[in-house]
Amino acid sequence: MHALPRRIRALLFDVFGTVVDWRGSIIRECRALGRKKRIAADWDAFADAWRAGYRPAMARVRSGELPWMNIDQLHRMILDGLLPRFGIDTLTEDEIDHLNRVWHRLEPWPEARRGLTLLKRRHVIATLSNGNVALLVNMAKHARLPWDTVLSAELFQHYKPDPEIYLGAAALLGLEPSEVMLVAAHKDDLRAAQACGLAAAFVRRPREQGPKVKLDVAAAPSFDYNARDFVDLARKMAR
Amino acid sequence: MHALPRRIRALLFDVFGTVVDWRGSIIRECRALGRKKRIAADWDAFADAWRAGYRPAMARVRSGELPWMNIDQLHRMILDGLLPRFGIDTLTEDEIDHLNRVWHRLEPWPEARRGLTLLKRRHVIATLSNGNVALLVNMAKHARLPWDTVLSAELFQHYKPDPEIYLGAAALLGLEPSEVMLVAAHKDDLRAAQACGLAAAFVRRPREQGPKVKLDVAAAPSFDYNARDFVDLARKMAR
Repeated sequence: MHALPRRIRALLFDVFGTVVDWRGSIIRECRALGRKKRIAADWDAFADAWRAGYRPAMARVRSGELPWMNIDQLHRMILDGLLPRFGIDTLTEDEIDHLNRVWHRLEPWPEARRGLTLLKRRHVIATLSNGNVALLVNMAKHARLPWDTVLSAELFQHYKPDPEIYLGAAALLGLEPSEVMLVAAHKDDLRAAQACGLAAAFVRRPREQGPKVKLDVAAAPSFDYNARDFVDLARKMAR
Repeated sequence: MHALPRRIRALLFDVFGTVVDWRGSIIRECRALGRKKRIAADWDAFADAWRAGYRPAMARVRSGELPWMNIDQLHRMILDGLLPRFGIDTLTEDEIDHLNRVWHRLEPWPEARRGLTLLKRRHVIATLSNGNVALLVNMAKHARLPWDTVLSAELFQHYKPDPEIYLGAAALLGLEPSEVMLVAAHKDDLRAAQACGLAAAFVRRPREQGPKVKLDVAAAPSFDYNARDFVDLARKMAR
């Protein structure tokens, strides 16, 4: 573990995959929709394809090819391409809009709420997500996530891993980057935060991409903390 | 009471004077500072003068005379002018900086936390304050205010009553202006919100400016709700 140069005052959390189980949540809701609407589709593949469209769509915004679009808009753009590909042609516009907002209704990992509540006792806890503000607020309400505030790429009009979002979040909180720690299950996100001077806590979420995908969840000494989950992180930070 | 055209989904709260007792809080902390540092000053007048500098300072930003400065910066600019006026010349830079952040440590009105907790059950509750994000987050932590998120003029680089802040807040929450209600003890703030299509709830805070100043706290039929306090508002909204 590296020596922390300053006291950590705020913890910023990546959300999709780190706090919530996007894949399991989407598959469950889509299966229920399929039963109700008598749509037989491969919902596992559908969820994976939706998520797979996310990075390329953000890359088009980051490069300037697309104007600023928030994640609700990018999710909808990807969804509009997926529906015909998966042979789904019986949904009304209202149903498609509701489906697009499944990302507002994702379920947290089992210990996430308890871990956040523990971490909140001694730190400011906030999201730092590419998800838009409305999505994150609705998700917090749905999943009872006890954020002190919601910070989003939308506030900076820069998606992770652009430095503007990490530095912008620290500035909005009135803190030096070294007083802020990103908590994420994704090493590339953590490395981008470290390059901006933030501390970094890696949390293992081995099932983020389902049971068949083997993710790199090995602890890395370059991170300030490596934790099994949020409760474990709270225990390690209390030492 | 006016018919509400759409269901109210989110409540946005003015903060200084509506949620927290800025005057009482500042006077209490300044008196303690005065005792500790043996400074004899008229702290009631000092608090009033500090607050009196706030609107003119924001007006200079709103007009473009000053570049964007957040409230911490404006409070410090005003404070730097007040200290010599009140004969306060024994504070170190660290002490002045700490004093400037008294606005992060304001105490809520007695029923505010309970009322917010009630209102949070059925609505998104967020700040909509000219205070900066760090100030509002630190205040929420200090006073245990259960916001779903913190929205601030700083996010829009527009101070109230500019329309950009009311419309920007609704847009960030993914809502139509008519689905959002401003809750405030200040009729001018409410009227500016109404001009943008938001609903408006007036809450009486007769002691905001101290026992000697008689404020206009009469109910007005042009507002969607007129309430004694947040608990009363929760009761009225539950009908």
